[in-house]
Amino acid sequence: MTQYMDVHHGMRGITEEQLRQAHTADLAIQQEEGVHFQQAWADPESGTVYCLSEAPSAEAVQRIHERTGHKADEVHAVPLSVR
Amino acid sequence: MTQYMDVHHGMRGITEEQLRQAHTADLAIQQEEGVHFQQAWADPESGTVYCLSEAPSAEAVQRIHERTGHKADEVHAVPLSVR
Repeated sequence: MTQYMDVHHGMRGITEEQLRQAHTADLAIQQEEGVHFQQAWADPESGTVYCLSEAPSAEAVQRIHERTGHKADEVHAVPLSVR
Repeated sequence: MTQYMDVHHGMRGITEEQLRQAHTADLAIQQEEGVHFQQAWADPESGTVYCLSEAPSAEAVQRIHERTGHKADEVHAVPLSVR
């Protein structure tokens, strides 16, 4: 399993409730693609949302997002990480 | 304190060691601006690096990155987050 960071643009004005609803919809079906969404962050001002996941492929991440109605604009494998 | 996600492009081929060195350099001086870098992720293939921090402002985040020689291309406040 690799970590992925996916990015959604055009989400200007997104609220905490909308972010939570979108994330909850992803969580509800993620296991059908072997994806584990770990966290999501939103910048309502620029309309950018970042989702961090563990998944078998970028395509698996995108399939979940597509099925829940919010296709990602970018999905990047992020095999390197530091704390 | 607000969370920030900053993004660096053009880092194609970055290694785990280079990511760690850059992050360690940031950590070494972050308190001078009241910034706390929490985690960083890299996609060596597209050359994209994401850094998550807590900070008093986007400018404070950028000042640390500039001083350590790797100015961010984007710094977004991400006041909304879900797990």
